Amino acid sequence: MFITIEGVEGSGKSSSTNDVVNRLRKEGYDIITTREPGGTPIAEKIRDIILDVNNTNLDPRAEALLYAASRRQHLIEKVWPALKQGKIVICDRFIDSSLAYQGGARNLGIENITNINMFATENTWPDLTLLFDIDPELGLDRIRKNQGREVNRLDLEKIEFHKKVRETFLNLAKKYHDRYVIIDASKSQKEVEEEVYNIIKERLNGIK
Amino acid sequence: MFITIEGVEGSGKSSSTNDVVNRLRKEGYDIITTREPGGTPIAEKIRDIILDVNNTNLDPRAEALLYAASRRQHLIEKVWPALKQGKIVICDRFIDSSLAYQGGARNLGIENITNINMFATENTWPDLTLLFDIDPELGLDRIRKNQGREVNRLDLEKIEFHKKVRETFLNLAKKYHDRYVIIDASKSQKEVEEEVYNIIKERLNGIK
Repeated sequence: MFITIEGVEGSGKSSSTNDVVNRLRKEGYDIITTREPGGTPIAEKIRDIILDVNNTNLDPRAEALLYAASRRQHLIEKVWPALKQGKIVICDRFIDSSLAYQGGARNLGIENITNINMFATENTWPDLTLLFDIDPELGLDRIRKNQGREVNRLDLEKIEFHKKVRETFLNLAKKYHDRYVIIDASKSQKEVEEEVYNIIKERLNGIK
Repeated sequence: MFITIEGVEGSGKSSSTNDVVNRLRKEGYDIITTREPGGTPIAEKIRDIILDVNNTNLDPRAEALLYAASRRQHLIEKVWPALKQGKIVICDRFIDSSLAYQGGARNLGIENITNINMFATENTWPDLTLLFDIDPELGLDRIRKNQGREVNRLDLEKIEFHKKVRETFLNLAKKYHDRYVIIDASKSQKEVEEEVYNIIKERLNGIK
């Protein structure tokens, strides 16, 4: 089973999932958690180009193609082998992040980004996608509190960008309602964790 | 005007074009010659990943996406600015090489490779494509004579691959007959150069 977790920055998706994974592992589930580039050397090198702050000229379309290439290597070297061994794979961000950030917020078009990713993944979609939904201003507030820093001009400029990311995620959840579950990430971490646990547990019913 | 030159290895496309370009420049044409990644730093870094012999795990689909990303940066940073300045751009290999090598010879499909490249190039096609056509065995023979080395097992294994590349180029020349001109690259370099000169000169008629 291939599970992905998605959401805007500050949605708490990673920390909320970690504890649930530990609980499920104790119950005997064989779970690997990963995120692109997932330690695969080629995907890491691709990621270095995307994240290199010196590459300010990196064009959004080139960036989208690099994410798709990195996703491909991560699937080939890590996700698919684990799925073939019957493991449960939980991946922090996957195709929906490309759709929301690049297709939606960067205006490259959902269909365009879907197409290049279908080429990259050979039509691999997650079995279950947990969307940690939160108002990006609240998410930003959380980051500020956790990191103890002031909101800067760049953060505020980015609010519109992150609002568009959230909006696109919510549209994707409607479009792909069979695999999407929306989690209200504004609730307490304890409540969120309980919900995540129950959703995954229900889907895993019978798989061990 | 955007001109691309294509062909299998050993077709002599680069050397035959160089002299023609010098001749045309002396006549006053403003020509830049380039090839991907064309010295653009981001595209160079992408190219490093593709060509790194240590990346033996690089998946063909990831490779195709990386070529498309590198092509995008090269267009943005080098080809489009030159075309906007009214220059003639002659590019050694472009989309047709991806179609022939990856779409055809690596069996990823012409339509697939076309699609990811249309995303990368925003539907940019060359105005003129010169296909230097030669039997790959003859091309290999040339490389052997020029480099003074014996044909090795790997070269022979690759013959079938290069035959498929040639076959795909010839199919593309039929499909895109408006922009393609096939040059018989088995002729002497002098004859080939004369033909290349005449073809480009004819297309440039009136442009200076």
